[in-house]
Amino acid sequence: MTDVSVHEVGTRDGLQSISTFVPTEVKKSWCRAEFHAGVREIEVCSLVPLKLIPQFSDAGEVVRHALALEGLTVAALVPNLKGAEKAAELGVHKINYVISVSESHNRANVRRSTEESAADFERIVALCRSRPKEARPVVVGGLATALGCTMEGKVPEDRVRRLAVRLAEAGADEIILADTVGYGDPAMVRRLFGAVTRDLGAVPITAHFHDTRGLGLANVLAALDAGIRAFDASLAGLGGCPYAPGASGNISTEDLVFMLESMGLKTGVNLEKLLAVRRTVCAALGDQPFHGAIAKAGLPKGFTVATSA
Amino acid sequence: MTDVSVHEVGTRDGLQSISTFVPTEVKKSWCRAEFHAGVREIEVCSLVPLKLIPQFSDAGEVVRHALALEGLTVAALVPNLKGAEKAAELGVHKINYVISVSESHNRANVRRSTEESAADFERIVALCRSRPKEARPVVVGGLATALGCTMEGKVPEDRVRRLAVRLAEAGADEIILADTVGYGDPAMVRRLFGAVTRDLGAVPITAHFHDTRGLGLANVLAALDAGIRAFDASLAGLGGCPYAPGASGNISTEDLVFMLESMGLKTGVNLEKLLAVRRTVCAALGDQPFHGAIAKAGLPKGFTVATSA
Repeated sequence: MTDVSVHEVGTRDGLQSISTFVPTEVKKSWCRAEFHAGVREIEVCSLVPLKLIPQFSDAGEVVRHALALEGLTVAALVPNLKGAEKAAELGVHKINYVISVSESHNRANVRRSTEESAADFERIVALCRSRPKEARPVVVGGLATALGCTMEGKVPEDRVRRLAVRLAEAGADEIILADTVGYGDPAMVRRLFGAVTRDLGAVPITAHFHDTRGLGLANVLAALDAGIRAFDASLAGLGGCPYAPGASGNISTEDLVFMLESMGLKTGVNLEKLLAVRRTVCAALGDQPFHGAIAKAGLPKGFTVATSA
Repeated sequence: MTDVSVHEVGTRDGLQSISTFVPTEVKKSWCRAEFHAGVREIEVCSLVPLKLIPQFSDAGEVVRHALALEGLTVAALVPNLKGAEKAAELGVHKINYVISVSESHNRANVRRSTEESAADFERIVALCRSRPKEARPVVVGGLATALGCTMEGKVPEDRVRRLAVRLAEAGADEIILADTVGYGDPAMVRRLFGAVTRDLGAVPITAHFHDTRGLGLANVLAALDAGIRAFDASLAGLGGCPYAPGASGNISTEDLVFMLESMGLKTGVNLEKLLAVRRTVCAALGDQPFHGAIAKAGLPKGFTVATSA
């Protein structure tokens, strides 16, 4: 049993920021190797129109490969009903649908209002519920820019809470609160995650933090204090922000696992194996902005590596 | 009034890791500019034998310059009684004496046992108390490797607590607990800083964190939770660990101020001015490993910059 779930999103959030096509074999072996290192949930692709992100043109093959790894939860990000239909056809276990809380960000991202996106979510839930029980994916309502927006600045907490409740009432099995642009701070995180946790009751919440401004792991600590036990992260911190060259993207999976395991929280992830995956993936991806501290500094003397889940 | 004190140590911890001599004018203008950005305590030099660290051969001139900045607390690090005598002669406001909790680290660092170093501290306290009241420096007992040691691995919490109490009983006005090698994690930090705070009662404690393994700011958050309100930090995260090339050193002052101010904690530091100091200092220091996220990513839209103290 683990105390905290670590979800790999580098295969989606990281790869979508790489403009050259990454070979399918690299994607497949990345998923496989992380699974063997103990990671039990991977967002393996984004099901967006291929003309927007050709990187995921091999999504079908990657999903099929990941589905063969027994015990792995295979997730796909979808921006709309069409993506959800494709995800359901492919047989993913989990559909991560994303709405930006900030109206401007949502329009820039998917060219419609937050309200239209929320209405679309209801159709996605209906789609999933129409499927036979054994082939019904978990539906996740993700809220991007939940801690701030590069276009609108501060995002009102009330708006985030209302949208989270709306998605839960529409039938979300889980909620993701995402600090898409790295604006969150620990005080804000404790407040917001605490409030949404109280609002939603039993609906599980995942925290998705970017380390753009260096506060990623401090925000993880704050979210842990608020009772959050599931975190998205990206191997080598892949997924830089296009508006800030040199700035890092997602929190790095290795550093997240290092912090959690150091604190005595079981993740089921074997950090030495995970660091080996990082080396292989970085070598395969070539010249990209890789982040993360533990890979550079090495594990502390006396650190106990967990057995893979 | 400020909620949290930010102590700049880049002028000591950062400069001591630069092998080429940094011009005295650069050191002086660094101190001056940070003071004008609102920083109210700077460790301006280390008073070690010059043949060990020639970087601080101009300590006298730098200290005199810093002492002229009214309202600035000028601190110097000293490794022994001789350094303390020099510091007192120069008229610094604060003497930061450092002992490694780990026996092996202390021997490697100052070639004597922790016990001998502790005994030396008593002589330093006596020296300071022998001075006229208006010229009596604050004496600080610093404990290096308080959260782990690259040579010994885990450092027993009891040992840290006993040494902290010993230095306080010997007359330390303040205590510093330092994660010299970046081994600390937030759970350990909460436990240790909580325990030492209870042990010491009214003696103020400063936290000195390195970001070697990426947990620096998460550890700051943990220390804040334990009631700590003073933090050492280094501009641009200067002060890399010699055993881990590419790994960062101290937590970066800019990122620390960004986190604290974002959380609504007043530091008295104007972050825009501080970022300007960073640009000037980095340009003057040339090719060094600079760290820190906020300088790369930029302040969030809507961030309120504090007025300088």
